[in-house]
Amino acid sequence: MSQPRRRLLLSAFLMNTPAHILEGLWRKPGAEQVRYNELALWTDLARQLEAAKFDALFFADVVGLYGNFNGGWDAFVSKGLQIPSNDPSVIISALAAATENIGLAYTSSVIQDPPFDFARKISTLDHASNGRIGWNIVTSEIANAHRNFNQPGFTPHEERYAWADEYVEVVYKLWEGSWDEGALLVDRERGVFADPAKVHKIWHKGPRYSVEGPHLVTPSPQRTPFLFQAGTSKTGRAFAARNAEAVFTFSGSPEDARHLVDDVRAQAVAHGRNARDLAFFAGLSFVVGSTEEEARRKKAEYDEYLDLEGLAAHAGGALDIDLGGVPLDTPLKDIRTEGGQGILDSLIRATPGNAPTVADMVRWRAENMRLVGTPEQIVDQLERWQDAGIDGINIVNHVIPGSYSEFIEGVLPELRRRGLAQSEYAPGSFREKVFGAREGFASGAQGAGYLSDRHPAARYRGAFVDVPK
Amino acid sequence: MSQPRRRLLLSAFLMNTPAHILEGLWRKPGAEQVRYNELALWTDLARQLEAAKFDALFFADVVGLYGNFNGGWDAFVSKGLQIPSNDPSVIISALAAATENIGLAYTSSVIQDPPFDFARKISTLDHASNGRIGWNIVTSEIANAHRNFNQPGFTPHEERYAWADEYVEVVYKLWEGSWDEGALLVDRERGVFADPAKVHKIWHKGPRYSVEGPHLVTPSPQRTPFLFQAGTSKTGRAFAARNAEAVFTFSGSPEDARHLVDDVRAQAVAHGRNARDLAFFAGLSFVVGSTEEEARRKKAEYDEYLDLEGLAAHAGGALDIDLGGVPLDTPLKDIRTEGGQGILDSLIRATPGNAPTVADMVRWRAENMRLVGTPEQIVDQLERWQDAGIDGINIVNHVIPGSYSEFIEGVLPELRRRGLAQSEYAPGSFREKVFGAREGFASGAQGAGYLSDRHPAARYRGAFVDVPK
Repeated sequence: MSQPRRRLLLSAFLMNTPAHILEGLWRKPGAEQVRYNELALWTDLARQLEAAKFDALFFADVVGLYGNFNGGWDAFVSKGLQIPSNDPSVIISALAAATENIGLAYTSSVIQDPPFDFARKISTLDHASNGRIGWNIVTSEIANAHRNFNQPGFTPHEERYAWADEYVEVVYKLWEGSWDEGALLVDRERGVFADPAKVHKIWHKGPRYSVEGPHLVTPSPQRTPFLFQAGTSKTGRAFAARNAEAVFTFSGSPEDARHLVDDVRAQAVAHGRNARDLAFFAGLSFVVGSTEEEARRKKAEYDEYLDLEGLAAHAGGALDIDLGGVPLDTPLKDIRTEGGQGILDSLIRATPGNAPTVADMVRWRAENMRLVGTPEQIVDQLERWQDAGIDGINIVNHVIPGSYSEFIEGVLPELRRRGLAQSEYAPGSFREKVFGAREGFASGAQGAGYLSDRHPAARYRGAFVDVPK
Repeated sequence: MSQPRRRLLLSAFLMNTPAHILEGLWRKPGAEQVRYNELALWTDLARQLEAAKFDALFFADVVGLYGNFNGGWDAFVSKGLQIPSNDPSVIISALAAATENIGLAYTSSVIQDPPFDFARKISTLDHASNGRIGWNIVTSEIANAHRNFNQPGFTPHEERYAWADEYVEVVYKLWEGSWDEGALLVDRERGVFADPAKVHKIWHKGPRYSVEGPHLVTPSPQRTPFLFQAGTSKTGRAFAARNAEAVFTFSGSPEDARHLVDDVRAQAVAHGRNARDLAFFAGLSFVVGSTEEEARRKKAEYDEYLDLEGLAAHAGGALDIDLGGVPLDTPLKDIRTEGGQGILDSLIRATPGNAPTVADMVRWRAENMRLVGTPEQIVDQLERWQDAGIDGINIVNHVIPGSYSEFIEGVLPELRRRGLAQSEYAPGSFREKVFGAREGFASGAQGAGYLSDRHPAARYRGAFVDVPK
């Protein structure tokens, strides 16, 4: 690369649960994620990440049981595998009060909160945090989650995305269109708090939602929160290309990531957006040593606790295959599945080796996301990810807060030495910090934190001015 | 009264909006409620209330426009009258982090969050606050709120309460029945986070909700949050008698309060609860002077800003009568209404004077909730409310934080002098602080913060033990 590298965006990938991705690690001494119910675990971590100038902390979330293992869900409970889990949205304001600059992003599914209520919660938080809120838009693929929300069970993929399309339409209308610029007056002299001529109902009527409005919250620093998405299916990518400002990816290699990044950027351009209107984050985990040997030794210490059966339960849940009841050394090709044969075939192709077993596959999935080595070796590898089009990393933890301390002490100085990490925050909202100030807007000015004019939500600005009250 | 008086429970009655109840006061210099978007306004207030040993701060909430005034909703926007307003649930964790003892209660309507999602949010907050969460159960009477949530418009009163009955049934099942005592193990040695045999799906199927479960959150210090309710209709009282642990009231006088209190307590007893299983709070506001003259002068200063038209808009919204378009000096008997004649008649009877006008009525409504005088005079009056069966007060503000400072500096010392206010918090959860430790439980022990065994939610304890997974 001849052009100077951009800095890497840094996000901490969290879930308010004992066992998020690298299963079994909660057992390791010093794994504080078992304190996930305590607010202080998260406020302390937020302060630590902000001191290191992380761009964001991001809470994944799932609103139901992940899947079946051995025909039921016992394994998930006994392994703490995303159950128990807490709702991230209601702890965000404590993190906002504990910090000043770090972005605060969380997952909320379209099946979860009605759009009127959700839009109001987000706007409240965007005010409370001075414009630091991010929303990861998900559609919930697991059946139990749907059955927790009055749905009959599994909702087909295409239908879920149609649902998401209408959901974002409603919240975009509320965030961007219900209150015009300049509506808020707070004129104590004349006794006029807001100008009624500039506040509008949205009168949304669609196949799934009927929402009158107006939005109850004044425009927050970002109006629409910073928008994340993580879909990798064809429909998911198309949705991201239209809506996302940042995309979370889990790719097996920089080369795999490049295919995804190039595809989604190209689709975004086809929708009238710029390729650089989207930032891509790779989900990666780090084991750092002052020598390669030390890093290998530390990795071996983590691996002692890595629960292969837990990884199999998680992988099976995500892939809709029950991987329980078969020994871990069963070759993947000997597994019988009803609905998941296509997924199983792709796993067999992807996993290295001649006749990969279940253990091989889950070990490979964990290996793939882990960069192990000296700071120089790790940053060399991160440059390869960057060359593939990745803008940032979403750091998966072995232990909380240890994995973040390890990254901050081990990797961050080398990133800074190469000019790949910020030493100070840019001013303004989360969006301004990630993308820089928008043309024509002074940072921190009204509107400077808003979505790009090229984003589809921008069409609702001023859209309800002439709508009857 | 020959028996020694109990202390009065103290709650601050708030709404995250510029103009909650005493309309127009946001214009007064020093009225910081105009900063309602800022987290610091609320965290600072929470700390101040906790330093004064208040039992609770309580956020009212409304998820739509209040009503019509002059045939539309412009007046509400220009007066800041409950629009704009923010969602209280998402700022509670910041208040929890800023305090240690004060109860944190908020309103959430059954039309707002689906019960699975709501139960999880509450449980997360009850963990985050160490058992200090209260929920005010409301059914939303205003039509615009219903039209923000896929409802056709006004939902009949009885139907709303039937809805609420099913809603609380679902959340009770999740809070009380889904996780047995002792389910959580966090056994690092054996690698067992929780015992699957003690975690259950609830399989709820009812006319409005279908919720499979399990609850995703481990039992919080209170399991079920402290339950508030504020219904005054026949159906509302019956609901409170079955479900509420505290009831908010706005009565014209201690004598009126007594009728309500006696009625609801008697109904509670008929349901197998104890009369003292419910605490009653009176909504009152305070203007304190070192002399009566000083208090009158301060009241006159507040009254300069009191917006009679705003009070009329609010009263009309609550009563479903559009009081706009008629001059404030119009006699109530000359007002024409289609649906609200019964309410109007009762207002004509209640308002003092021969031919009370709209202005007389709204002034009377504001006067009624205000106690004005020296500390001694005010506490004398509070004792009359207490004699009528009232257990605590829910303090309505003219200005934030000034009205609370005025109460804390002016009234609280006199309450303490008479043994009517606590100087230290009792240990334990919000419920233990209000009701005292339950028999057989050490304060702070597992279960000590739970609902009384006489509460209907208690029937779901252990109810799903034998239910198939």
